[in-house]
Amino acid sequence: MSAASLLFSCSMHVGVFHPKLAAKSSPWNLKPKTSFGHSGISEKSKLSRKGDEIMWRAGALHVESAPSSVGQKFQFDDVIEAQQFDRETLDAIFEVARSMESIESNSSGSQMLKGYLMATLFYEPSTRTRLSFESAMKRLGGDVLTTENAREFSSAAKGETLEDTIRTVEGYSDIIVMRHFESGAAKRAAATASIPVINAGDGPGQHPTQALLDVYTIEREIGKLDGIRVGLVGDLANGRTVRSLAYLLAKYQNVKIYFVSPNVVKMKDDIKEYLTSKGVEWEESADLIEVASKCDVVYQTRIQKERFGENIDLYEEARGKYIVNKDVLRVMQKHAVVMHPLPRLDEITVDVDSDPRAAYFRQAKNGLYIRMALLKVLLLGW
Amino acid sequence: MSAASLLFSCSMHVGVFHPKLAAKSSPWNLKPKTSFGHSGISEKSKLSRKGDEIMWRAGALHVESAPSSVGQKFQFDDVIEAQQFDRETLDAIFEVARSMESIESNSSGSQMLKGYLMATLFYEPSTRTRLSFESAMKRLGGDVLTTENAREFSSAAKGETLEDTIRTVEGYSDIIVMRHFESGAAKRAAATASIPVINAGDGPGQHPTQALLDVYTIEREIGKLDGIRVGLVGDLANGRTVRSLAYLLAKYQNVKIYFVSPNVVKMKDDIKEYLTSKGVEWEESADLIEVASKCDVVYQTRIQKERFGENIDLYEEARGKYIVNKDVLRVMQKHAVVMHPLPRLDEITVDVDSDPRAAYFRQAKNGLYIRMALLKVLLLGW
Amino acid sequence: MSAASLLFSCSMHVGVFHPKLAAKSSPWNLKPKTSFGHSGISEKSKLSRKGDEIMWRAGALHVESAPSSVGQKFQFDDVIEAQQFDRETLDAIFEVARSMESIESNSSGSQMLKGYLMATLFYEPSTRTRLSFESAMKRLGGDVLTTENAREFSSAAKGETLEDTIRTVEGYSDIIVMRHFESGAAKRAAATASIPVINAGDGPGQHPTQALLDVYTIEREIGKLDGIRVGLVGDLANGRTVRSLAYLLAKYQNVKIYFVSPNVVKMKDDIKEYLTSKGVEWEESADLIEVASKCDVVYQTRIQKERFGENIDLYEEARGKYIVNKDVLRVMQKHAVVMHPLPRLDEITVDVDSDPRAAYFRQAKNGLYIRMALLKVLLLGW
Repeated sequence: MSAASLLFSCSMHVGVFHPKLAAKSSPWNLKPKTSFGHSGISEKSKLSRKGDEIMWRAGALHVESAPSSVGQKFQFDDVIEAQQFDRETLDAIFEVARSMESIESNSSGSQMLKGYLMATLFYEPSTRTRLSFESAMKRLGGDVLTTENAREFSSAAKGETLEDTIRTVEGYSDIIVMRHFESGAAKRAAATASIPVINAGDGPGQHPTQALLDVYTIEREIGKLDGIRVGLVGDLANGRTVRSLAYLLAKYQNVKIYFVSPNVVKMKDDIKEYLTSKGVEWEESADLIEVASKCDVVYQTRIQKERFGENIDLYEEARGKYIVNKDVLRVMQKHAVVMHPLPRLDEITVDVDSDPRAAYFRQAKNGLYIRMALLKVLLLGW
Repeated sequence: MSAASLLFSCSMHVGVFHPKLAAKSSPWNLKPKTSFGHSGISEKSKLSRKGDEIMWRAGALHVESAPSSVGQKFQFDDVIEAQQFDRETLDAIFEVARSMESIESNSSGSQMLKGYLMATLFYEPSTRTRLSFESAMKRLGGDVLTTENAREFSSAAKGETLEDTIRTVEGYSDIIVMRHFESGAAKRAAATASIPVINAGDGPGQHPTQALLDVYTIEREIGKLDGIRVGLVGDLANGRTVRSLAYLLAKYQNVKIYFVSPNVVKMKDDIKEYLTSKGVEWEESADLIEVASKCDVVYQTRIQKERFGENIDLYEEARGKYIVNKDVLRVMQKHAVVMHPLPRLDEITVDVDSDPRAAYFRQAKNGLYIRMALLKVLLLGW
Repeated sequence: MSAASLLFSCSMHVGVFHPKLAAKSSPWNLKPKTSFGHSGISEKSKLSRKGDEIMWRAGALHVESAPSSVGQKFQFDDVIEAQQFDRETLDAIFEVARSMESIESNSSGSQMLKGYLMATLFYEPSTRTRLSFESAMKRLGGDVLTTENAREFSSAAKGETLEDTIRTVEGYSDIIVMRHFESGAAKRAAATASIPVINAGDGPGQHPTQALLDVYTIEREIGKLDGIRVGLVGDLANGRTVRSLAYLLAKYQNVKIYFVSPNVVKMKDDIKEYLTSKGVEWEESADLIEVASKCDVVYQTRIQKERFGENIDLYEEARGKYIVNKDVLRVMQKHAVVMHPLPRLDEITVDVDSDPRAAYFRQAKNGLYIRMALLKVLLLGW
């Protein structure tokens, strides 16, 4: 990094402990994002109110987590979209997530993030995602500032920009988890914030932590990611989840993907072309039973009624077409699993739940470990 | 218990520390509810993520709380309805509640439930009850995941079943406190959950913690439960509270209950017959003054306008009929008290508040102690 | 203080540890507010559940904060309106606020308020203010009971009085922060509560913590309060903020205030007369550039559309009249600053944000320090 930016970072750093000076020398909206390089700590952590303290903590953590050499490579300041992660970074995140499983089962509870505050800025309600993030923060000893409905925030009511809202909230917290109704909102927030921002879903756009927990679940359940066969079933046209999952799977070797969906909600060409360009084998099929018999993972999704508007009959037809039930289980391999992003209606019958291969509730639980891992890495470094 | 189920419990137990193995060997929806018998810890606590740790803690706690022999007797995994408790269990809960009074007054705050997370899943708003439970959890050093309005939860919006929601939330927390608009919802949630569930009111159904705090208040204020005389006043037809209270009072000796209510909202026959069958003396009266002069407890309730629909005049007539005011205080005995589940409108005049016998705000405070006690017993055992 | 009230206070004090006795000897609604005099701890703290513990804590704190002699002078039990504070008390609060800046930047986080619970009772949503208070409490190690919308509280729904709600909530918490839609509501709550109450805005009435953070910001940014020149710009007729600020500035020497506002929203006579009576020089001007060139502080405010009703054109005209932009910055002195209570629309152009003299986001951050200071003083004393 250039001497100039190094100098600048230092002035910022000092500034943290002398708000006024910092303010004079470096207004909030300026923010270097280059890495210090000599450690795994994110730039934002460095510039956060934790200052030197972080250095020391992260130092301590290197021992118990990934080697500091790792840290240098997998530098990220925010979690905005699934595509931002390369395979090595995903592996590193999953390694931390696995360590979180034992931390979470420890009754005394971790104090790793003691003294840190997470703000959950939700512009549309998503109790499932919000609780998962808040549980993650609290399981690590951190605390939370919650907004179940940030639309009521002055901004929405009085026309404040998202940027101004972020500048205010970053003064009260150490990391922001944001759910927004506009695609791209997370990117805007991250560009403004001097603290880390995690995208908890921005409209039709991205929901990166869901994509990460899906891949993590496959790796935990099947034991590998290279060479797996995945059947994506249901609403492949509108499902944000399956699209992101397809993107991430393309980072692994010899993956084969089967698309099984009603004609009205087929997987779109952009994804198919992307997979082909990445050398990922894919195939469309109308036979769920045959696909299920060949796959390691049957990933079922909900047909989203809201997408069909008037055409209720079209919806009903699409909805009933591919159901995961006992017949599907019967042909699935012993080691294979059924996944679903939840919530489910009847696209997976309830009698499937008791089968050990029903992985969807474990999948939901894995969301906790992935979020714990991301909070840890963003706030303390690797 | 059968060797099979013992074996199973163990696999579950081990499973806790190896989620995948556990998942394969024991899917979430299977769950033995028989007691281990050799300690006061609830089955669910044993199977919770706290594992062995619990054993140790509970062991330690036996010293400071009830003897372990007690633990064996009063085994319960969830709090669903007032009737589930026998007299001995009530006494044991009240003993713990009393110990909570001193814990709560200790400025440094207890760390008894440090590392535990309570999820408050409220499908209809009830700030009073929610704050009381959340205060109880935090006064014991635990933390909380809140949903002020769980109807917005994916489930309501997208048609997820309560069971699926519970299976998700139990992955993020250690105990669930649920308020629901449907009678029986708490029982369904408890049947699904592998962690303890407390019913914070399910529609017209039960509100057991209110019933417990009422009986606890009588015992604290009057010093006994056997041989007391209680006047139930106001809306006895629709009041969930007075019905549950009558049920619980039937567990004590030589109790006499007076029903004082407008004709349109008289106590229903099912309760009267139940009391008779239990040998509880009861009497209907239209003279509040005469009843008040004889009772240890005058339990006033609000006439619920919402029950009268169009008939506003009927409501107004019923509402004005029995008011607890200075005249009523004048005839009450020195040791007697006035109770009310709150909120009150004008069925108790404000000038009564300053009388030492006005126990309704102390009654609300007792709700905190009862909820602290239940959280402690369900999570740590006796 | 009279022997009688001292005696009474003691009975209360004892009562805290024996609820029933306390209840008999001193019902909740009675409450002496005179000071003990021999220490800086507020009466309410003394009567709070923390009891003796407080004495000790406060004793310890005298060392690190203001001398105990200070404590005696600046006695206050609640924060209801800006006018309640004299200059000396403001100085003392600002001194504590400054110490909070370093506490907040300490990564391990303070445990000063560990074991204390703050209830945020918001009858109308104000996420900005709520998050700021909750962050303040948590930065000091305390915890929070939240109600994002207390209108749903039984009270609103079923007609409970504010007084009854307060008597219930004070049983669950140690301090209440209340936002209400009715002017005077905070005063009523404080008169009822036996624990401290902070007014977080009551309708068109007061928003004292905003006024305090404004004055604190001026002192932090300019380095003095005596002899400053402040330009109040924008909606001076309806802006609760600028009116309270004018009140507080009158407590300092040789202050000069310039009013710059569209004719439809001019500063009202009551304030002008108050300033004159206090010997504060003030002047109305239509020339923002000329005023900006002379002032230490340019305090811009939002023209509140909601006040114009039908007259959109009047609003648009008023709104566009005085904008703080690069031209204004050009004439401002090096040491001067631009302030704004936020949220802002376009009355300050975005290109101003990067100028070190743009103080409005630091101003928002100062709200955190002021609220930390008030929580500390009200709960632990000076």
